[in-house]
Amino acid sequence: MSSDTPKKLSSKKVENIIFCVCLFLFQVVMIILYSVWVRYDKDSNHDPLPNGESPVQEEVDNLYGYFRDVNIMIFFGFGFLMVFLRRYGYSSLGYTFLISAMVAQWSVLVWGFYDSMLEHKELREYYYFTMESLLNGLFCAGSVMISYGALLGKVTPLQMLFMGIVEPVLFFLNMYIMERLHAFDVGGGMTIHLFGAYYGLSVCWFLTNSKAKHSKENAASYSGDLFAMAGTLFLWMMWPSFNAAIAPRGHPQMRALANTFLSLTGSTIATFIVSRLFSHYGYKLDMVHVQNSTLAGGVVQGVMAHLNVNPGPAISMGFIIGSVSVLGYIFLTPFLARRFNIQDTCGIHNLHGMPGLVGSIAAVIAAAHAINNPDLYSAAEFKVLFPAGDDQAKRNAAMTFIALAVGIIGGIISGFCMKQIGKIGKLTKEEYFSDHAFWVVASDYPKEFEGVDPHQYIHDEENGVEMDQAEKRDESMPTTSDHQQ
Amino acid sequence: MSSDTPKKLSSKKVENIIFCVCLFLFQVVMIILYSVWVRYDKDSNHDPLPNGESPVQEEVDNLYGYFRDVNIMIFFGFGFLMVFLRRYGYSSLGYTFLISAMVAQWSVLVWGFYDSMLEHKELREYYYFTMESLLNGLFCAGSVMISYGALLGKVTPLQMLFMGIVEPVLFFLNMYIMERLHAFDVGGGMTIHLFGAYYGLSVCWFLTNSKAKHSKENAASYSGDLFAMAGTLFLWMMWPSFNAAIAPRGHPQMRALANTFLSLTGSTIATFIVSRLFSHYGYKLDMVHVQNSTLAGGVVQGVMAHLNVNPGPAISMGFIIGSVSVLGYIFLTPFLARRFNIQDTCGIHNLHGMPGLVGSIAAVIAAAHAINNPDLYSAAEFKVLFPAGDDQAKRNAAMTFIALAVGIIGGIISGFCMKQIGKIGKLTKEEYFSDHAFWVVASDYPKEFEGVDPHQYIHDEENGVEMDQAEKRDESMPTTSDHQQ
Amino acid sequence: MSSDTPKKLSSKKVENIIFCVCLFLFQVVMIILYSVWVRYDKDSNHDPLPNGESPVQEEVDNLYGYFRDVNIMIFFGFGFLMVFLRRYGYSSLGYTFLISAMVAQWSVLVWGFYDSMLEHKELREYYYFTMESLLNGLFCAGSVMISYGALLGKVTPLQMLFMGIVEPVLFFLNMYIMERLHAFDVGGGMTIHLFGAYYGLSVCWFLTNSKAKHSKENAASYSGDLFAMAGTLFLWMMWPSFNAAIAPRGHPQMRALANTFLSLTGSTIATFIVSRLFSHYGYKLDMVHVQNSTLAGGVVQGVMAHLNVNPGPAISMGFIIGSVSVLGYIFLTPFLARRFNIQDTCGIHNLHGMPGLVGSIAAVIAAAHAINNPDLYSAAEFKVLFPAGDDQAKRNAAMTFIALAVGIIGGIISGFCMKQIGKIGKLTKEEYFSDHAFWVVASDYPKEFEGVDPHQYIHDEENGVEMDQAEKRDESMPTTSDHQQ
Repeated sequence: MSSDTPKKLSSKKVENIIFCVCLFLFQVVMIILYSVWVRYDKDSNHDPLPNGESPVQEEVDNLYGYFRDVNIMIFFGFGFLMVFLRRYGYSSLGYTFLISAMVAQWSVLVWGFYDSMLEHKELREYYYFTMESLLNGLFCAGSVMISYGALLGKVTPLQMLFMGIVEPVLFFLNMYIMERLHAFDVGGGMTIHLFGAYYGLSVCWFLTNSKAKHSKENAASYSGDLFAMAGTLFLWMMWPSFNAAIAPRGHPQMRALANTFLSLTGSTIATFIVSRLFSHYGYKLDMVHVQNSTLAGGVVQGVMAHLNVNPGPAISMGFIIGSVSVLGYIFLTPFLARRFNIQDTCGIHNLHGMPGLVGSIAAVIAAAHAINNPDLYSAAEFKVLFPAGDDQAKRNAAMTFIALAVGIIGGIISGFCMKQIGKIGKLTKEEYFSDHAFWVVASDYPKEFEGVDPHQYIHDEENGVEMDQAEKRDESMPTTSDHQQ
Repeated sequence: MSSDTPKKLSSKKVENIIFCVCLFLFQVVMIILYSVWVRYDKDSNHDPLPNGESPVQEEVDNLYGYFRDVNIMIFFGFGFLMVFLRRYGYSSLGYTFLISAMVAQWSVLVWGFYDSMLEHKELREYYYFTMESLLNGLFCAGSVMISYGALLGKVTPLQMLFMGIVEPVLFFLNMYIMERLHAFDVGGGMTIHLFGAYYGLSVCWFLTNSKAKHSKENAASYSGDLFAMAGTLFLWMMWPSFNAAIAPRGHPQMRALANTFLSLTGSTIATFIVSRLFSHYGYKLDMVHVQNSTLAGGVVQGVMAHLNVNPGPAISMGFIIGSVSVLGYIFLTPFLARRFNIQDTCGIHNLHGMPGLVGSIAAVIAAAHAINNPDLYSAAEFKVLFPAGDDQAKRNAAMTFIALAVGIIGGIISGFCMKQIGKIGKLTKEEYFSDHAFWVVASDYPKEFEGVDPHQYIHDEENGVEMDQAEKRDESMPTTSDHQQ
Repeated sequence: MSSDTPKKLSSKKVENIIFCVCLFLFQVVMIILYSVWVRYDKDSNHDPLPNGESPVQEEVDNLYGYFRDVNIMIFFGFGFLMVFLRRYGYSSLGYTFLISAMVAQWSVLVWGFYDSMLEHKELREYYYFTMESLLNGLFCAGSVMISYGALLGKVTPLQMLFMGIVEPVLFFLNMYIMERLHAFDVGGGMTIHLFGAYYGLSVCWFLTNSKAKHSKENAASYSGDLFAMAGTLFLWMMWPSFNAAIAPRGHPQMRALANTFLSLTGSTIATFIVSRLFSHYGYKLDMVHVQNSTLAGGVVQGVMAHLNVNPGPAISMGFIIGSVSVLGYIFLTPFLARRFNIQDTCGIHNLHGMPGLVGSIAAVIAAAHAINNPDLYSAAEFKVLFPAGDDQAKRNAAMTFIALAVGIIGGIISGFCMKQIGKIGKLTKEEYFSDHAFWVVASDYPKEFEGVDPHQYIHDEENGVEMDQAEKRDESMPTTSDHQQ
């Protein structure tokens, strides 16, 4: 241990205190704002309960199943998808968990604010909490998790906290603009995937450095890959629910489910073909592709899954984007890292960025096609699906650019701030892509990095700063591995 | 191997035979009682099938989704939550699986018995099996799994079998008393969590000994912690369903879902703050807290999730109890182990005990508040939610004490019996928190404990008792690792 | 490395190219056929959207929840159930994923073809895609996954591709015959389990060889067993949905859910008794049994879960078949491998074969019983449940033989072809039950087999055949473990 270790460690301690204070303040502010402003549904006090056929029950019956599925995607799916790194499992699961929970709370208020502006309501009026508020919170958490994918292994908890507060404001700005433009985006292809990916990549540009790029811990483990597949599969299986959750009921919802499923089968098949053909070892499948590119078919349907695209084209879209996604992993991701210094840990550009963009463009084409072929839909359905009427294609095109622009500009500003925040509790080279920087690790956590012993840290820290807890330890709890007695 | 080994091993053999005979008898008795007494729903023979709108179909449509989610919580959630121990994964999953399946069967009959008493029915009449019978079975299994959490690693299969038969009788005694008192308990905060936790802790008092306390196997592994997070996340994601499953439909069900979700986000945020601030290593997160205390927000809503508490207070409840739960893990759990000899393996006192108690008290306060503010609910809703009317607060307070008392007294009696039962096939020091005592283990199961080789066991056992199976082994199945050919 | 290595490796390369070309052609043919022939539901263009009460919305509301559950079973459940092998996790998950996705696409067309024959429709008419088409696709994928269970570790991707195309044709042939016979098979006991198992075993007969039988990699790992339990548990928990998905709504659906659940508890209890009693080590539980035989109670209800069997007999059926299944693992599986050269990797004969057969016979008995006791059902229900009337028992008996015959004969023909196909990219001894033959493996993949280093392969291959990709590698991607930069 060199002589600057105590200073480094006390920097971690500072990060800890700031993190805890900020998160505590966040929670207190949430509780105050919720308490003064948010209430359960309007008719709560007046309605009798005629055998459950109240409107609120209908909302629960129609939406809760989808909410549950999206919940699984955000917390389990995204969390486990990121466990592939061999020493970053705790962090992947932990930060996903914390930040998604935060965003779910925060987004109700943010959307409440924009929504009040949309509906020209006074902010003094109560904001009424519905099942849709909860769903929007999960969608927003989804976009933050996408951005996190690019940063995996390179951020401190405090940086994540900052992103979890700032990104939802931009996410719902997009949603607000979309509502005003009357663009459609049934599964968040633009507002969740496209925005989330380019926001994350812009932030990533600021956080990539040579320590991160040359870390030998940016590597998968065998069991990590299996855990990640659990995340992949739950994302894959629940994706139809994701794209159909807020689709208009009836035929559009049915098509959203079917188009998404078919498209996913297409991208899965494409992944296996292209991965084997273009793999660096000539004829071998690569788990990275199977874990990610198989899902591209869900993303590409994100804007227009509910439209009357026939089953054939739905499969084609999945197949094409699955191929593009794998090629992105093989050629584009290393190129971006080398030339543009954007080290995209999970390859979100291949899973969310390009598929989101292609899906957005496809939706513009589909809208233009529908305007010219109004017999594809009944008149009533047409009105619901294309609220902007003849302008729909243009509006959706505009929204694509706006989502991209808000993502990139917002990401650059956020990235700049996060780089400064990262100086607090700065990661050392061996802390990149590793849990031991911020977690008490299990007894079998790999030891071959330098200075791993947690006791060592405590010892060093005691030289620098005061350390109450460690002194309180009694003999019944001597090591990290006996943490439950 | 010392000379007493054959005796020790033959004790395991005796445990095996008694276990198998008892479990077989249990199953035979179940089949007989079910066959003579339990039938499918009454109108099964008379109803025409008018396009699925029969009452039974409505029950399926309304309840099966919740049943499915609670099913995931009991079998997958509790099972995997307990896999954190590095050498006890088979046992955690296996016993959870077996005992929950047993309890699900048994509880239908037990509740059928109490229910007949409640409704003054003759026992000669058939008991009609409904979706709610199944749900009650899962809830009861939940309370047994909670109790098991305190005993994890310290019990033989025979002891678990005993508990799986006795505890449901007490569980449904509580439910019977609750029905008579007209107390409410929408998500089992009193009957499942409070009862289950204090029953388990009382039993634990009898089963804690120095061998268990000084076992070096009471430790997590890295991959074990990741598996446990899968359990945690599914519990977390399905908890709204747990609390809302039997809530009155309409607004109460909507509120049960939303309050539970918001409370869970609060306890998740609290966990990360308090874990980092008070961790033994000064600024590091602890997986134990993330795996458990994040769930406290669901437990604390267990009694009153369906009441018209606003979103703000729901978050606060989760935040406070999440903080309390982490502090419990850091300070109280080691204290209980040291001073009171209660070694609570999973920390159920922090996850179910205290949150259950706080939730029960909060419900008493909420009921008292509602009596004084009847405009919080419509008249019809008020009647459904507070069946005891003005007495509701007192009744719920009484039920809190009863649940606690039944848990503690029942646990003391059960614990005494289980201690005696534990003498059959007594665990040696190196068998605590380890699978190899009762499971054929995989080839990579850690070898560094004494006398692990299963062949050795057989060899020794052959000296003591007859052993038919081993002699039948043929050359195609020479080791445990080739068990499938 | 001996001198024949380059030839062996170029054989893998040939397999790769043929596999990729065939899979690509498959996808192109699918897209063309879907585009010309498959459309979304008929009334798509005409219906107004009267607040979601359209027939298509009813279909979504009634079926999508079950579809979602079956989706979890096929992709997550079967996938993870097979991860027990210590070096075959990627392949288990990967091939399950790919082949199930393929089958889901392909089966819509195959069933569309048979269905048109059934309904005497011209093939020129569009085939309309419904939620039921999707469900049928998953059921068919289930039967292919069952067959795959016998072959696990012994097949090349190309062989799997062949099976994924051929087996659905036979699967739907069975369904076609069943529709014509008016036999019933609510959860696919005959068409999925019985057919799938005997098809797989017949194929397995051709693919078992001494290299496979003496591979030391046909062994579980500790974490592999835990992963497999995740598969088991999700299969177990979702099985009621599997058997109830297409049951007539009302009482039959309720009974399908309850009978399946109760039967599963019975087989779970039986598993633990018989596994401990008959285990090769005298008193120890075996994970193989817990992972598989616990599920036999779901299979045995596959044909008749929806009939008015009382809860008692449902438990009994599960208990008996669970016992039989464990005994099968202990005695029959090694016997089949030794005497008949059928090395059934996952023991599908015990989990699907025998339980499917017993369930089919039980259904014949139940049908005969119902004919003589028509008061068990209302008249309307009777008509729905027994479409063949008095002939029902005979028809179901006939269908049992047909399913078995189609499975065995089809399996023999397929197995013969697959043996020839297996000569392309032939597996070496150390490639059986191992991922490294077709996957880029993680840095911690066990190294103790011969010639594992992927760089070595590349090096050797460069001697034999041209290898563009490897030469393109740049310094930023020097090893397999840095695959994401």
